[in-house]
Amino acid sequence: MSLKAVVLNCSLKGSGQTSNTRALIDEVIKIFDKKKVETKIFRLADYNIPVGISDDLGEGDDWPEIFEAVKEANILIIGTPIWLGEKSSLATKAIERLYGGSSLTNEKGQAIYYNKVGGAVVTGNEDGGKKASSSIIYGLSHIGFTIPPNVDAYWVGEAGPGPSFIEAEATKNDFTMNNAKTMGYNLVHFAEMLDAQPIPVEGNTLNS
Amino acid sequence: MSLKAVVLNCSLKGSGQTSNTRALIDEVIKIFDKKKVETKIFRLADYNIPVGISDDLGEGDDWPEIFEAVKEANILIIGTPIWLGEKSSLATKAIERLYGGSSLTNEKGQAIYYNKVGGAVVTGNEDGGKKASSSIIYGLSHIGFTIPPNVDAYWVGEAGPGPSFIEAEATKNDFTMNNAKTMGYNLVHFAEMLDAQPIPVEGNTLNS
Amino acid sequence: MSLKAVVLNCSLKGSGQTSNTRALIDEVIKIFDKKKVETKIFRLADYNIPVGISDDLGEGDDWPEIFEAVKEANILIIGTPIWLGEKSSLATKAIERLYGGSSLTNEKGQAIYYNKVGGAVVTGNEDGGKKASSSIIYGLSHIGFTIPPNVDAYWVGEAGPGPSFIEAEATKNDFTMNNAKTMGYNLVHFAEMLDAQPIPVEGNTLNS
Amino acid sequence: MSLKAVVLNCSLKGSGQTSNTRALIDEVIKIFDKKKVETKIFRLADYNIPVGISDDLGEGDDWPEIFEAVKEANILIIGTPIWLGEKSSLATKAIERLYGGSSLTNEKGQAIYYNKVGGAVVTGNEDGGKKASSSIIYGLSHIGFTIPPNVDAYWVGEAGPGPSFIEAEATKNDFTMNNAKTMGYNLVHFAEMLDAQPIPVEGNTLNS
Repeated sequence: MSLKAVVLNCSLKGSGQTSNTRALIDEVIKIFDKKKVETKIFRLADYNIPVGISDDLGEGDDWPEIFEAVKEANILIIGTPIWLGEKSSLATKAIERLYGGSSLTNEKGQAIYYNKVGGAVVTGNEDGGKKASSSIIYGLSHIGFTIPPNVDAYWVGEAGPGPSFIEAEATKNDFTMNNAKTMGYNLVHFAEMLDAQPIPVEGNTLNS
Repeated sequence: MSLKAVVLNCSLKGSGQTSNTRALIDEVIKIFDKKKVETKIFRLADYNIPVGISDDLGEGDDWPEIFEAVKEANILIIGTPIWLGEKSSLATKAIERLYGGSSLTNEKGQAIYYNKVGGAVVTGNEDGGKKASSSIIYGLSHIGFTIPPNVDAYWVGEAGPGPSFIEAEATKNDFTMNNAKTMGYNLVHFAEMLDAQPIPVEGNTLNS
Repeated sequence: MSLKAVVLNCSLKGSGQTSNTRALIDEVIKIFDKKKVETKIFRLADYNIPVGISDDLGEGDDWPEIFEAVKEANILIIGTPIWLGEKSSLATKAIERLYGGSSLTNEKGQAIYYNKVGGAVVTGNEDGGKKASSSIIYGLSHIGFTIPPNVDAYWVGEAGPGPSFIEAEATKNDFTMNNAKTMGYNLVHFAEMLDAQPIPVEGNTLNS
Repeated sequence: MSLKAVVLNCSLKGSGQTSNTRALIDEVIKIFDKKKVETKIFRLADYNIPVGISDDLGEGDDWPEIFEAVKEANILIIGTPIWLGEKSSLATKAIERLYGGSSLTNEKGQAIYYNKVGGAVVTGNEDGGKKASSSIIYGLSHIGFTIPPNVDAYWVGEAGPGPSFIEAEATKNDFTMNNAKTMGYNLVHFAEMLDAQPIPVEGNTLNS
């Protein structure tokens, strides 16, 4: 059975508009395609996702559909633009909602996010890639995801207003493209490792 | 009497080597010169500054000399390069040492940093300007400095390895140059305001 | 004419539910009341605020009503709970929306937030007060607010799950109560100073 | 052959003084002892470690001795106190020095930190555990370490001045003790996994 990846694109723009973050996400997905990973992308701005620390906020909450996909996935990527040097409010909300499910356990009693791997894709026209990545990576790690090495792919331009990823033709930026590639491969390598050999159930169940 | 400014250049390189951070600091100082502010720059890498939360760690500690200048200054700028997306270890140490003096009071019982204004100058070859600035500005604010608007001047290049400030000829970057100018003016405006009219002694003494 | 304060309470809970953050906000407002500052509190969870970097996203957007109040205010406080060690997604969205108005100018050509002062109130059951405060304070400062000293009042309990502000009877915590008081006074002191003597128009207009 | 762990204790105090951070580190090491992991602790304040982005700054630099141990280790923990809500300047310097070795490769061409796992131990008398952890975990991940789930053990007390870890008898704090235990086990589980089955050499060599 093939591995599964879920990408939460936390662009503030809905799917009717071009997302620069999506353009960099696509570079990572190229590797997933090559490795036969089945990928689902959710454009969060298209969904009705209320705020609250819960995996299900009831009627009208679209999160449970997304959360089902996360639960079935081996890989989770949070993709976000940068505003004022930080991840977007939709990314913050996504992490809050994931946190709302963090007391759920798998059949062995470990957090439900065990044996899943996580990473971050970040784009901005300038500055903030590492701050946004570090927030996402820490948040995922803290609730049970495994973080392979080098799974933060970002692109930012020179300080100040300027073109975003697509307009800047940033697919020509070797550094970012290499990061996206390494990120893709390392997420798959670790997803395969944890699929074949899950984290031992010792010292890490939620009620131990 | 003229206003006084102190700049702590937290480059990891000593004064024998070119500091890109210094090059951006100099842009702010141009405004200070214009406004007849007397400026002292300390290149922290040239000093022996032990670690510890104290304003004076005794024999061999060069900090007290720097701290004297800070106490006499109206304006304090912390200048730092970026490493792994954050301010340098010397900047972290400078803030620890300033914190070590945060229980000292002026003659009115307010923290010794009251009526002083603070700002941040940050350079890196890529990404991290806002994270470093935000850490410095919050740290200074938390111990008693006033933060005028727009006192974070930074320059970073496009994602990935690349030229630093000087080599990139970043003095041609309008955004950063404008930030440096606004920062210089606003620091002086507020230093003058607080010199003429100090913060009222109400609700803000340390032992109230 | 009396000074005006606006507080954005970014609790994830609507006004039908008790907000711990509100309880600490109230401590700051006690000072505002004493100093005859007129205060408006907006509970963001009660409003329909779409995402986007704009001061007005059109039909159905409740932000313009809030933004009008911000524009008339001398003081802005962002109050937020802590989730996973950071400010809430509603606080992130509030800052994005404020950023959406950051290119607007006053009649002198300075950013519309000039001569306004800002601060942060943060509560969580454990850890994250300074990180949330630092993000808010930097964000406000970067778009034109003045940050007086010591305007970050926060309360957090010991590491781990535990009671929140109200249940913990944290109004008995001298440190936090003192911070709330100092914050209240310093916001008023600076609002009065800037009301009497606005920031000089030199080196700080947006199109200079 | 047994697994090896290196702990960098970035307390600002030398080994002549009691380190609260060390007390929490010891809780993690209990698990290492149980699992026959050989542990070396370096108290950074005891060493002469100049600043600079390099794995070896020449005569008088004690870092190369520490770096040798890191290179032989399967597990690296950075332990730090909190000052002004952040990791210590010694922790910042340790990460800068590790970064200075990040272009070195193993015999397969991957970064030298591949197949090593990393984690963070943080103590403070109040607030900042997650911010310090997130900085450490991101820094390590960005240069090649693998981050297992839940490898951030921290303790902080209630907001305000108060007792530190030892005086507060924080070994009675179930949350922190459980985090320390899970951290210990997960570091060992992943070190064993990567020792038995290293990260495939595909898409992740430094010069690919």
